Amino acid sequence: MSAPRVGIVGCGLIGQKRAAALGGARLVACADVDEGRARALAARAPGCRAGADWRAVATAPDVDLVVAATPHDLLPAVALAAVEAGKHVLVEKPAARVAAELEPVAEAAARRGVRVRVGFNHRYHRAFRRLRALLDEGVAGPLLFLRARYGHGGRVGYEQEWRADARISGGGELIDQGVHLIDLSRWLLGDLPHVQGLARTFFWDMQVDDNAFLTLRTAAGQVAFLHASATEWKNTFSLELYGRDAKLQVDGLGGSYGTERLTLYKMLPEMGPPETTAWEFPMADDSWAAEMAEFLEDVRLGRPPSAGLADAIAALRVVEEVYRQSGPLRPGRR
Amino acid sequence: MSAPRVGIVGCGLIGQKRAAALGGARLVACADVDEGRARALAARAPGCRAGADWRAVATAPDVDLVVAATPHDLLPAVALAAVEAGKHVLVEKPAARVAAELEPVAEAAARRGVRVRVGFNHRYHRAFRRLRALLDEGVAGPLLFLRARYGHGGRVGYEQEWRADARISGGGELIDQGVHLIDLSRWLLGDLPHVQGLARTFFWDMQVDDNAFLTLRTAAGQVAFLHASATEWKNTFSLELYGRDAKLQVDGLGGSYGTERLTLYKMLPEMGPPETTAWEFPMADDSWAAEMAEFLEDVRLGRPPSAGLADAIAALRVVEEVYRQSGPLRPGRR
Amino acid sequence: MSAPRVGIVGCGLIGQKRAAALGGARLVACADVDEGRARALAARAPGCRAGADWRAVATAPDVDLVVAATPHDLLPAVALAAVEAGKHVLVEKPAARVAAELEPVAEAAARRGVRVRVGFNHRYHRAFRRLRALLDEGVAGPLLFLRARYGHGGRVGYEQEWRADARISGGGELIDQGVHLIDLSRWLLGDLPHVQGLARTFFWDMQVDDNAFLTLRTAAGQVAFLHASATEWKNTFSLELYGRDAKLQVDGLGGSYGTERLTLYKMLPEMGPPETTAWEFPMADDSWAAEMAEFLEDVRLGRPPSAGLADAIAALRVVEEVYRQSGPLRPGRR
Amino acid sequence: MSAPRVGIVGCGLIGQKRAAALGGARLVACADVDEGRARALAARAPGCRAGADWRAVATAPDVDLVVAATPHDLLPAVALAAVEAGKHVLVEKPAARVAAELEPVAEAAARRGVRVRVGFNHRYHRAFRRLRALLDEGVAGPLLFLRARYGHGGRVGYEQEWRADARISGGGELIDQGVHLIDLSRWLLGDLPHVQGLARTFFWDMQVDDNAFLTLRTAAGQVAFLHASATEWKNTFSLELYGRDAKLQVDGLGGSYGTERLTLYKMLPEMGPPETTAWEFPMADDSWAAEMAEFLEDVRLGRPPSAGLADAIAALRVVEEVYRQSGPLRPGRR
Repeated sequence: MSAPRVGIVGCGLIGQKRAAALGGARLVACADVDEGRARALAARAPGCRAGADWRAVATAPDVDLVVAATPHDLLPAVALAAVEAGKHVLVEKPAARVAAELEPVAEAAARRGVRVRVGFNHRYHRAFRRLRALLDEGVAGPLLFLRARYGHGGRVGYEQEWRADARISGGGELIDQGVHLIDLSRWLLGDLPHVQGLARTFFWDMQVDDNAFLTLRTAAGQVAFLHASATEWKNTFSLELYGRDAKLQVDGLGGSYGTERLTLYKMLPEMGPPETTAWEFPMADDSWAAEMAEFLEDVRLGRPPSAGLADAIAALRVVEEVYRQSGPLRPGRR
Repeated sequence: MSAPRVGIVGCGLIGQKRAAALGGARLVACADVDEGRARALAARAPGCRAGADWRAVATAPDVDLVVAATPHDLLPAVALAAVEAGKHVLVEKPAARVAAELEPVAEAAARRGVRVRVGFNHRYHRAFRRLRALLDEGVAGPLLFLRARYGHGGRVGYEQEWRADARISGGGELIDQGVHLIDLSRWLLGDLPHVQGLARTFFWDMQVDDNAFLTLRTAAGQVAFLHASATEWKNTFSLELYGRDAKLQVDGLGGSYGTERLTLYKMLPEMGPPETTAWEFPMADDSWAAEMAEFLEDVRLGRPPSAGLADAIAALRVVEEVYRQSGPLRPGRR
Repeated sequence: MSAPRVGIVGCGLIGQKRAAALGGARLVACADVDEGRARALAARAPGCRAGADWRAVATAPDVDLVVAATPHDLLPAVALAAVEAGKHVLVEKPAARVAAELEPVAEAAARRGVRVRVGFNHRYHRAFRRLRALLDEGVAGPLLFLRARYGHGGRVGYEQEWRADARISGGGELIDQGVHLIDLSRWLLGDLPHVQGLARTFFWDMQVDDNAFLTLRTAAGQVAFLHASATEWKNTFSLELYGRDAKLQVDGLGGSYGTERLTLYKMLPEMGPPETTAWEFPMADDSWAAEMAEFLEDVRLGRPPSAGLADAIAALRVVEEVYRQSGPLRPGRR
Repeated sequence: MSAPRVGIVGCGLIGQKRAAALGGARLVACADVDEGRARALAARAPGCRAGADWRAVATAPDVDLVVAATPHDLLPAVALAAVEAGKHVLVEKPAARVAAELEPVAEAAARRGVRVRVGFNHRYHRAFRRLRALLDEGVAGPLLFLRARYGHGGRVGYEQEWRADARISGGGELIDQGVHLIDLSRWLLGDLPHVQGLARTFFWDMQVDDNAFLTLRTAAGQVAFLHASATEWKNTFSLELYGRDAKLQVDGLGGSYGTERLTLYKMLPEMGPPETTAWEFPMADDSWAAEMAEFLEDVRLGRPPSAGLADAIAALRVVEEVYRQSGPLRPGRR
């Protein structure tokens, strides 16, 4: 098979990351509402064309695989158009503003027999790949619960970005960073039908939440205790997973989130301080490349992507339920 | 005034810590169901007598101040007897198994005009004293929320200890370590009338909870997001407090919980990485001595102790509400 | 006074950093053997001209202050020409390959009444500015000794760079990173007339040293125990300064050297674990700007720069003595 | 074979540690100038006798193996008497005040065919056992050099202890903690015939050194750059070993020296930040037990102990040479 031909819709930061991590695939077309941005991206790939019309890219005859990297509101439309045109699609998380927007995409993908992957790239960070390998070796025993903290310190003007506009984003911190925590929890523990959550806007002068506190449960009773924050003041990522026999902890995501590190705390029969092993990954983040490589294999083998539309739909249902439970976002004003 | 004369009821680990941290007070009597333990403690203080009869100590004419350091079930009875005999009382947290047990104590203390302090000693750890001073200087601005994790790795036979017997302890991890987190949250944010919580037993073969996940709120909407765990595998204490202008973090409690450290993350006007200052306290824990010194001042000045019966009652009401919401503790068996 | 007009000779990495940190001064001319590099730098400053002729910049009538940021062999010639033309000069460390090359520059600077600063910028890192302030407050008491480690992990092709050519560089790791350690030691402890040292080439296939181990002493007997390494495998900077009453430690220099941090270990009267305070500086390195701001003040006030030619001469004499003592650089081949 | 019967001479801190870590051997006799201390130790082992006469224990017919744990001045005499009586001997480091005191012991041991081990227990710390295993797997490639720092923060009255009396101790910090660094360097790199060193007394009012700075070399040119300090202010142990392909670092020794940790920095072909793996050993120090278990095997198999008299002699020769080079120990008074 010759190299799959990729079209990218949305040439911002994430679209650029995707273009730089295509591995065996080849970029042939890209589109952005800011056509200059599309041209700048196209200039990096010989023979790649650029334009402002996303639909032209999503349905182009010479495109095999579409990457949808737009703001949230456009993601399902791009994915649907591409799927209907018979393309495989990598749609960035959260894939839509609400789960219902993804149902037609899922229906069309099944009908057209194409693969749709959702860009929950955190699953592909080196620390999480190693964590998964350790779990598969059985090092932790049955899993009990997990705890995670994810947040950023904000940036001047944050409340003016499109992420702060609920019509475009579908929500705030919960649907942005929080959805990664929900996906990782589902990936590690399984489905989370029991949802308790609270979204709030503490700091930023915007209509969406800047903090979300979640207590989720599997049918078997395992708990995911999650906090996502846009007022973390110092960029932070930490996920702690507890099994009967060990604790596994991931800290950092590289860059301003600190060196990525996986720590294994292995209980001893006599209990007391656990035997501790840590792996650090100071190298550049290769999650985007690893995820795309796996998607190309999904396509080649005709297998369902490990983070697919069903995962995005499930994560968005948690998000929606938390927003429903939360009521007005401003503390003290209800 | 001559040195206050102290009687200690309960000569286990905590009673011994109290005896070693009496400061300007003098130990004159102690009692324990295990009379040998009482004698061993008495041997350390010249002229101190020992016995098995707690009531004799709690009501002795030559005792001014009673320390109640028994298992939970006996705490309110010891406190009540001492108060009725006109003694000041330091009763260890949680002070009772349920809030209702403390109401007669509070009533009697008001009637007899004596002081009752509850031993929420974490408020007196060096890191928290410094944190409080920084808050009082206004370094953090208005407080938004806090997040805390407290847990131990368990020890062989844990499920056989009195803490695992709900009739004695009133509950598990939530009422043991969790109640410290609730008290610290109240001390920092104020009353927490809104309670969402989940207590569960994941690991230990016992009738009480080994994990509790809490989302508490003040009337003004500030959130305390708390997790206490008896399956933490590695002893951990961490409290992160977020204000509009800064984050303050306390890690460790000394000993097996790691060196106590306070970190201030001060936001810069341009945001981005905060200016960071950390204070470490590798010295021995002096919280017990600092707490007692303040109690002696409370007594001398006739002022209400800063952690008093009302604080214990409020914390226990949170505990009870969480148990009520949680239903059966075993995951997957409901 | 209007803004001083600056000419930069050498437009590589360091010249570019200098151009970005001129503060109240104005870049009017720059030169580089690679004229394209000069033009790229000039393009950032309105009205700045570019060329390949360093002498034209160093002596230009409209230049008040020259920055010499070339490879080592050219530094003294640029400085001398500029000084003779009546310019003030900031010459990058080590300022020359050997001390003797700086004597004519010092003589000319005295004669022409101009200021020459040597770019030992580490003195201006935030952590060292704070350390100096703490020393000035007397926190450490009389100083006893210091210990420092500085090194990088190398990069592919390192042995092909100009730094590996002794005719251009005057030496290897010792004259590159080691000279910073020598300067910091002199800045903190004073002159270091007693020199014991060993330079060696362990790894890189080049004619200059990749490691240097130094034991230096002041006349009063204080010791500087220093190691500089181009085979550190992980970028590292650490300086530990011991006084009678406290230890002060600087770790990291930002970027790949890790977050810059200053730690104060203050001895307690009872000894045992010291009271520990740490300051972290995750913000961007502003040492270049702080150093230039101070130089502009030196010029304005006619005062001698705190790191001047005498400091570079003294540091180079240590370097030369270590090379003299070391003999052949290859271990096991002598 | 029945359990070897052990006699301990010197019942201070180290003698007690040895008694608690005898493994398959059995304590039958112990002696101390402070007979009460001997009795206290004997009370822990059924049937063990105690006395003040070391010679009676060292030569007792029912003793197979003698542990010599006295101050330095007595170590060679105890060892010699025991060896002449046909006993195997574990003599604590440094085994004597000067190398010459060990020559008769070595001669007698050869003549009597008994095993003498020297208690360089650091080789048996978990981190060093793991480090050795990694080296044996070839992870580091040929070794280039090492750097180590070892020191304590002192304690009130330190200058009054026997360690501060050169007639008893043979020297100060160099012969106390420094000798461990010398032994570890020899164990890792081999013999160190080239010695440069400086011993000094900076702080303590005593006749022995409180700091020693060493630059040692193997015949092949590998360097050991070592600093031992009794004015470290915070207890510290760190050894960094550099190979062509990796760096291995050991930090901490447990207890007040911090959790013991081994870190492997593995160079990547592209260089840049190395792949990093760390192992922590928060469990109790078992070096004493591991060392004794190996000695019992040495005895059983008739093989030479891995740290034997030749190692102590070589380490003491380094110590002596450093003292010779150092001249008067007081800085600034020569």
